[in-house]
Order: sequence, then structure tokens, then C-alpha cells
Amino acid sequence: MRIGILGGGQLGQMLALAGIPLGHRFVFLDPAIDSPSPPASAVGRLIVGNYDDPTALREFLASVDMVTFEFENVPASALEQIQAMASVPIRPGVQALRAGQDRLFEKTLFREVGLVVPDFACAATAAELPEAVARIGVPCVIKSRRMGYDGKGQAVLRDASPAAVDAAWASIRPTSPGVIVEAFVPFVRELSILAVRGIDGSTAAYPLVENRHEGGILRRSIAPAPGIGPGLQHSAEAFAFSIMRRLDYVGVLAIEFFEVVARGVPTLWGNEMAPRVHNSGHWTIEGSVCSQFENHVRAVTGQPLGSTAMVCGAAVMHNLIGTARADAEAFLVNPGTNVHWYGKEPRPGRKVGHLTLTGDSHAAINEPGPLA
Amino acid sequence: MRIGILGGGQLGQMLALAGIPLGHRFVFLDPAIDSPSPPASAVGRLIVGNYDDPTALREFLASVDMVTFEFENVPASALEQIQAMASVPIRPGVQALRAGQDRLFEKTLFREVGLVVPDFACAATAAELPEAVARIGVPCVIKSRRMGYDGKGQAVLRDASPAAVDAAWASIRPTSPGVIVEAFVPFVRELSILAVRGIDGSTAAYPLVENRHEGGILRRSIAPAPGIGPGLQHSAEAFAFSIMRRLDYVGVLAIEFFEVVARGVPTLWGNEMAPRVHNSGHWTIEGSVCSQFENHVRAVTGQPLGSTAMVCGAAVMHNLIGTARADAEAFLVNPGTNVHWYGKEPRPGRKVGHLTLTGDSHAAINEPGPLA
Repeated sequence: MRIGILGGGQLGQMLALAGIPLGHRFVFLDPAIDSPSPPASAVGRLIVGNYDDPTALREFLASVDMVTFEFENVPASALEQIQAMASVPIRPGVQALRAGQDRLFEKTLFREVGLVVPDFACAATAAELPEAVARIGVPCVIKSRRMGYDGKGQAVLRDASPAAVDAAWASIRPTSPGVIVEAFVPFVRELSILAVRGIDGSTAAYPLVENRHEGGILRRSIAPAPGIGPGLQHSAEAFAFSIMRRLDYVGVLAIEFFEVVARGVPTLWGNEMAPRVHNSGHWTIEGSVCSQFENHVRAVTGQPLGSTAMVCGAAVMHNLIGTARADAEAFLVNPGTNVHWYGKEPRPGRKVGHLTLTGDSHAAINEPGPLA
Repeated sequence: MRIGILGGGQLGQMLALAGIPLGHRFVFLDPAIDSPSPPASAVGRLIVGNYDDPTALREFLASVDMVTFEFENVPASALEQIQAMASVPIRPGVQALRAGQDRLFEKTLFREVGLVVPDFACAATAAELPEAVARIGVPCVIKSRRMGYDGKGQAVLRDASPAAVDAAWASIRPTSPGVIVEAFVPFVRELSILAVRGIDGSTAAYPLVENRHEGGILRRSIAPAPGIGPGLQHSAEAFAFSIMRRLDYVGVLAIEFFEVVARGVPTLWGNEMAPRVHNSGHWTIEGSVCSQFENHVRAVTGQPLGSTAMVCGAAVMHNLIGTARADAEAFLVNPGTNVHWYGKEPRPGRKVGHLTLTGDSHAAINEPGPLA
């Protein structure tokens, strides 16, 4: 099948690396802002253009049998154009993309399936922000409702003075429909789950992983998350499957949770979701029978889902953020270490690759020290 | 690194799928006889031309930092041209390629490292063949010394009459330097080992696998080969490492053995070798910490070798020979099943892909029935 992917970054590259052996070929539509040859250009045909550029879209749609995405901040107008221009399926669907694009929709959906979320209030304009902050109280987190990722478009507010509130709005520079103000959550750690749903409604999920962020960027994912009982895993899967059913979802979905301990009992609160393969699932390439990338391709092409069982006792993924090649590759002498480079020039703060370390147990994994 | 590969078939495709995540990019030189877009063209740049075409070679060499091969029947003249035209390293080296191209060199090398081979005699011309047959006796196997693969260029001779001998020569249509006549070996089964050697001389090997052929074509590989004691595994590794040392080999080497039981003790006899990644190692993609493809790329680019440990108790690889997509994909509902398509049109007798099945033990693997 000719699979069209909106976005040509590393997620697109890894989808194609998993999908080419399944007999598929890939076409990417990407504005190529950072580089004329984004990561996915190594594994398929690249069409350079904005997602809503009719000429680029026409060329893209003429070359593909279906459309999926590796980047969820595609403008809704692009999707409307695709639906108007061609009858190719878009998987996951437009409603899943919309839900993942707006933090208000996301939280509403989480509540609908019974997933607790932090108290929140919306502000469409700077003038509305003080009232929203007053409703939630400080400290709180102000987040752009749309286009946020990797900690971008967020500010922590510890002081409800008009000057501080104005400064927060200005630092975020929110676009329509404004921001959402969230109460601080007393969480123990961040967890995430990757789940997948087929066209026939079949579902599968990987084990919950623990994620460690620095400066809003994911640094490490630890799989399975240590100390997770079957109750918490089951609960995470049930939330994911309910959300997917509600969205008539096809493909891989990532949900990030806060682990909150209430009266000694660990529970999950909803943080955010991504309607695509996700950085916290990269370890599945080495760590699982069938990776998140292969399962996404299997799902969107109507094939049976692959097993999400782990092939090792433990896996850890380290993002390489601005890391030089030699610094990461020195680590390859450790058995059970795999490196993935995305074909990007290293720059400070830029995700250029990741390392996956696998072993019989977390204790058996020799982790690298800080990598640039 | 820009890796140049002589040959653009499925082995090239799988090398690139393993090497792109390591940050490499691939250029393939292939005559593209079977199809204008051979399997590897999906994952790198294809230069179409004969291996000894100076114009194609010049373009190829201008685009690469080093050269390796996925097809060992490259004419020696092509390698001489490469060495004359550019100073890029060729790994494994020319002497390894030459040893793998000629059954006489191969057997001589096997004997030098103490590996028993069937009795054999050479015949350069049809006139020399009756004497060679008389020396070995019937039944025997007559094989073209060069350019043989997948059972091509072979004939079994059960009758030493002049007519039968002439017919065997005619059916093989050997080119220079003629044929080799081999005594029939009373073997129990065929085994093979994949070994890898780095630029620094470090070595590693995968477990011995059992191979089942039909019509000279590999149908199934079973890993690890059932009932192999540590002595036989050690012996296979020692032969492989000795051969690699002798050839100053860099990369993955495959050696096929006959298992011969002498006075109740299983021993290994040498059958043939391939100076490249090999069909009997395809199961390592799912079954091993680091696959034969990634280890070949690591070796030829000077990186540390990856672990050859298995991640599952057992793996079985089924070649898909002329198989239609739907027939193989029906099998994907079984957990632990992965399919690899090479992007070739199905034709009778053509390897178009393979299935890998993994599980905790051979008993736990649900194998497909005959696949077209």
C-alpha cells in the first residue's frame, strides 16, 4: 500500500522502517522548515509544502492510498481539504486529531471516560486570564490550548499579581482559542501508555512506562514502569480503550498520566494524549514482539495487530538531545544497547536520536550518564 | 556514513533498514535485471548498471565512503576496477569475496582450518569430467565451481555412464573454471552459523540453525537448531572465527555445514560459505538482541559488535517463495509472527519475502502449513 504521512520527522522515519518490510511504500508531506531533508526523506518520497498548500496536497493525495500522521498539529483546514479533494481514508480520523489538538477537548474527553484531570479553567483572551487564575489558584500551570509540545507554550504561575499574570500570557503568546489554566497536581511521577486499535475494533496495549522530563522535554522512558501493580495497568488500558472506542480510533494512541497517591493508593490522573506513535514508546522497537511503529502500520492498513508482549525483562530509552555522535556511540560497547539516529544536525535542545538499553531487569541495565 | 552496496536485492534492503537508524545512508549498484526497482531501491539511491561498467562504477564510487556487498558473484574485474578507481575500503575484503566465489577455494580454506569436507575432484572441461567422476564414484554431486546459488548449477549423478556424465555437464553449462565433483555425504541435516568480525578483530556468533531445503532452495531455518550440545556450537564458532582470521574478514560470514554422525557422535562437515549476510540468519531481526544486518553494518563501519544473544526461546523462518500476499498475511493473526516482503512481484520459485515466528520454545510456535 502507498501510505501517505503528514509530517516527515523521526516518527515518520521509524514508521517507514517498520512498514517497508510489510510491503508498503511511504510518501511524506512536510514543510521541511528545519532542514531540506527531514528524517523521513531517507525512507520514502518527500513532498515539500505546507500542510494546507493545495498544490502540495494534490501531489501528495495523487500518490497515496491512505493518509496517517506523525505530527498532530496539522491545521484542521488541511484535513478538510484532504476530505474534499480525495476519498482516501484518514486514520486515525479527523475527530481524533482534533481531540489531540486542543487541551480543552482532551480534558473533556478524559472526564467522559472517567479519568480524573486537574481542575482547570479556560481564558480566550488576556483579559479573561486573571479570573481563570483566581478560580484555580496559585501555583498553577498556564498552557496554550493548541500547538503545545515538548514544554513549549507553557508557563508556571506562582504569583497571582496582575503583572505576573500578564507576563505569563505574553510569554506563551497563545493563538486562538487561548489558554487553559491547570491546578498543580501533587503527582509522584509521570506514566504513559501506548495502545493500538485495529479497523475491526481489536485492541492491545504496551506496559505502562515511567517518563522523566527535564525542561519540558522527555529525557528517559523506563519500561515497564517499576512497581506497577496489575490494577494500575488494567486501569490505564481501560481508559485508553474507552477513549479509542469513543473516537472510533484506528492506530496507535499515547496517553500521558500523572501517578497520584490518594490515601496510600496509587491512581492515574489524565495529563494529555497524542493521537500518534510517541517518544515514550520508542523502546518497543527492541523491547516488544511488535513495535508501536509496526502496530500503527498494521492497524491503519487493516492487518491483525501484533503482540505487545515484551521480549526482555526491562528496557530504558534515553533521548539524545543535541548529542554528538561519538558521545552516544561510545556507549554501544555495552551489550543490549541500540542507537537510533534521525539524520538531523545536532543543535542544543534538538532531539537527534535515542538510545535503547535492554536487559533481563532494570538492575541488569548499565545506563549511560548524562548525554549532552 | 555513505555505505555503497554491490547488489540491490532483499539483503541490501534489510541491511539499509538496519543501518539507517545507525545514521548511515545507502547507495546500491545493481544491474536491475529482474525489475527496474529492485528491493533495495525503497531504502536508498539505486544506480543501475553492471558491476563492471566503468561509468556506473564511477558514479557509485563518487557517492560512497565504503563498499560492501550483498551478492557475492560480483565479477573479480569489478573489484579490481574499484580498487584502481578509488581508495574506499571494501569490507569484507576482496580475498573473502574470491574465496566465496569458487567452491575449490572454499573447500581448500575449510581444510586449512581443520574442517572436514566431502571428497572432491575438479574438472575444467567436459573431457575431464569422466575421470573426476571415476575418482569420487557414484552417487556424487556435480557443482559449477562458480556462480552457484539456490541449487542452481548443480546435478546429482547416480550413474557413471558416458551419456549420463555428458548430460550432467550439459545441464550445468559451467563457465570457467569448470566443475567440482563431490562425494555424497551421509548427513543427518544441514546446519549453518552466522558469525561476525569487527575491524578490531572482535568476534561474535549466533546459535547454529537447522536449515530445510526443497529443490535446492532454503524453505525453513529453525533457531536454535534443536538438540545441539555446547560442543558442536563451540566447534562451529571456532571454524568460523579461524576462517575469518585467515581472511582478515570484516562483517558477517555464513557457513553451511552438514551434520554427520560418526560412531554415534555428531560432527560438522563443511558445505559452503557466503561472505555476506544470509537467508538462514533472517530470524535474527526478531530473534536476537542485534540482528545479522545491524551487526554487519556495525562491523563494516568500525562500531562495536552488538549482542548475538537470542531474545526468545525459539525462532523459525519460513521463506515465501512465489507466495501471494494474502496467503502469508492470513498467518499474522498468530502472535509472534512477523512478515517481511521484499517488494518483488510473485513468480513461481521466486523468494518474495519471509515470515519469522518467535516463541518461548519450538513447541510453543504455531507454524504455518506449506505456503505456495
